[in-house]
Amino acid sequence: MDVRAMNEMLPFVLRRDNVARYEEGVVWIGDRRKYPFEETFVRCEDVESVARAIEKMVTQGGGPWQAAALGMVMAARNVESKPEQEALETLAQAKERLINTRPTNTAMARRLEDSLEVAKKARVEGRSMEEALLDWVETLRDQTYESYAVRSRLGANLIEDGDGILTMCFAETAFILAMSMAKQDGKEIQVFVPETRPYLQGARLTAPSLHELDIPVKLITDNMPAFVMSQGKIQKYFTAADLITMDGHVVNKIGTFQNALAAHHHGIPYFVFMWGPDFESPDRASVEIEYRDPAEIRACRGTRTTLEAIEAFYPAFDITPPHLVAGVITKHGILSPYDLRPHFERAREEEE
Amino acid sequence: MDVRAMNEMLPFVLRRDNVARYEEGVVWIGDRRKYPFEETFVRCEDVESVARAIEKMVTQGGGPWQAAALGMVMAARNVESKPEQEALETLAQAKERLINTRPTNTAMARRLEDSLEVAKKARVEGRSMEEALLDWVETLRDQTYESYAVRSRLGANLIEDGDGILTMCFAETAFILAMSMAKQDGKEIQVFVPETRPYLQGARLTAPSLHELDIPVKLITDNMPAFVMSQGKIQKYFTAADLITMDGHVVNKIGTFQNALAAHHHGIPYFVFMWGPDFESPDRASVEIEYRDPAEIRACRGTRTTLEAIEAFYPAFDITPPHLVAGVITKHGILSPYDLRPHFERAREEEE
Repeated sequence: MDVRAMNEMLPFVLRRDNVARYEEGVVWIGDRRKYPFEETFVRCEDVESVARAIEKMVTQGGGPWQAAALGMVMAARNVESKPEQEALETLAQAKERLINTRPTNTAMARRLEDSLEVAKKARVEGRSMEEALLDWVETLRDQTYESYAVRSRLGANLIEDGDGILTMCFAETAFILAMSMAKQDGKEIQVFVPETRPYLQGARLTAPSLHELDIPVKLITDNMPAFVMSQGKIQKYFTAADLITMDGHVVNKIGTFQNALAAHHHGIPYFVFMWGPDFESPDRASVEIEYRDPAEIRACRGTRTTLEAIEAFYPAFDITPPHLVAGVITKHGILSPYDLRPHFERAREEEE
Repeated sequence: MDVRAMNEMLPFVLRRDNVARYEEGVVWIGDRRKYPFEETFVRCEDVESVARAIEKMVTQGGGPWQAAALGMVMAARNVESKPEQEALETLAQAKERLINTRPTNTAMARRLEDSLEVAKKARVEGRSMEEALLDWVETLRDQTYESYAVRSRLGANLIEDGDGILTMCFAETAFILAMSMAKQDGKEIQVFVPETRPYLQGARLTAPSLHELDIPVKLITDNMPAFVMSQGKIQKYFTAADLITMDGHVVNKIGTFQNALAAHHHGIPYFVFMWGPDFESPDRASVEIEYRDPAEIRACRGTRTTLEAIEAFYPAFDITPPHLVAGVITKHGILSPYDLRPHFERAREEEE
């Protein structure tokens, strides 16, 4: 699926160039903090600006690694004329700074490590490091979007005409593209989107994205999914995952788990889009849940909802056990959550 | 339990005089719309002002009937010197206006009908209608608060030292007083309060009420209860009910049902405070769920959370089936949800 065809099936916020793009020494990052009220970009002219933008949550999901990798392209341009050692040291510092923006994002860290090798190789070959890094980023991005297309196709095929669909948070390109494909396939769907407090990704990102694509969407609050199910309005539940452990536990935005419980009670299958295996996360016990600033629970988009003195509790993610998961959508197919380790070990062996 | 002792165990917003009070021709209604940010009262000098205050959600739960009944006291004062027929006609008009503020609140309507009889009898006996109605309201309020005390005692007895407790919305006096009693009994408890979007009764009323009483409280968002349960932090789940059908279905604020599902999954008992039987509501099919203005889903305390063009869906209540209910707390004891009709039919026969 080529970039142009995919762009036409994606909303503004998810189009490749709007996530992050590089223009002769400048990295532009789509600003999700202001979306959907404003469609703006953060302009970064040095690595520090890119790092700060990532830290300030200008972009999320697949955005940070793309912005960081383009930050390396920019860094390379600025040291192109420097002696090899100085150039590579500066690039190594840039890499460290960018990795530190999201210490738990190991996929981003791995890619930024790779970027140094790409730069080194280009210098040895007498090629422009900037050009070599940009080619490398765009190839990675091609692979990423190709993986989205494959998984979205599998997701879209699960949908039947007339289905009501529940999601949670902002399940990004894989989910939105799947809905877009189902629509293109001529299926009528109705998506219910919980607002996803406290950060409101559902209200701010998912609902406007679907609306922009003319896909029928109804925004609800996070206390409504079970009731909507009880009314027979939901046939499938889809989310993304921040992490899926090798024994099939889905770590995703808080609320995913209780929706999965309600779905199970109502006989509604829950499907989760998986990026790839994380062999470092064998099981539930290996997962550390991130707790965020409780002050965010006491406000909503800056408006206070209770007294400052009230204590609050903000676990950012929850864990859905595999018995509540009907299928894990990977680029190799829709897997049982109980077959992830065997499957990905076989796949790894075949690759080697 | 006398009023003073009870007041000391209740937060500002639930103290009898702060719900509504009568002072020589004026009805003061505690303004819950501004609580906890302001502790203010709406001053009403005529029946129309009382009616509008009720319509504008100045008070809720047990508040509307108390404010309306005090509105009848005020109406009586103003016609005391009028001939009997004119006086009673004016009172009948006042009663109609007040009933129409909450067409589905049948308990309030029944009481307002009774108020006319009280006024008529006073006039026949040559007594002040204002005084007679005020005595009647205060007797009803004594009975109401006595019923709270009995049910709260039963609720408090269910709590064990160290319990974590989940609630939903604002379960008013029965629940808050039960927590207060448990504390007085020397039990350490920790209450988790979901904010209850979109109207935020949990954040605005329940959490500040418990905080005021020095009862440990943690505010959470509505997508968190199942996760908090999975961490072993919850041992009991308590709510009020807008209505319990005679076959044991609990109709309460949206979110109650999915919390009950999550509680059941985690082996946590769910107890519900019941006001009294409603023989007009035999079963689930007899319940009509109220849908409110979807615009409220697109905002939070006046701040927009998404685009105006996004469709939204706002069911205000949900229905929890009896198999998820461990006990119904009534003034006669803690009943099985499957024994409500037989129990209350026996009780009715005994009274007759």
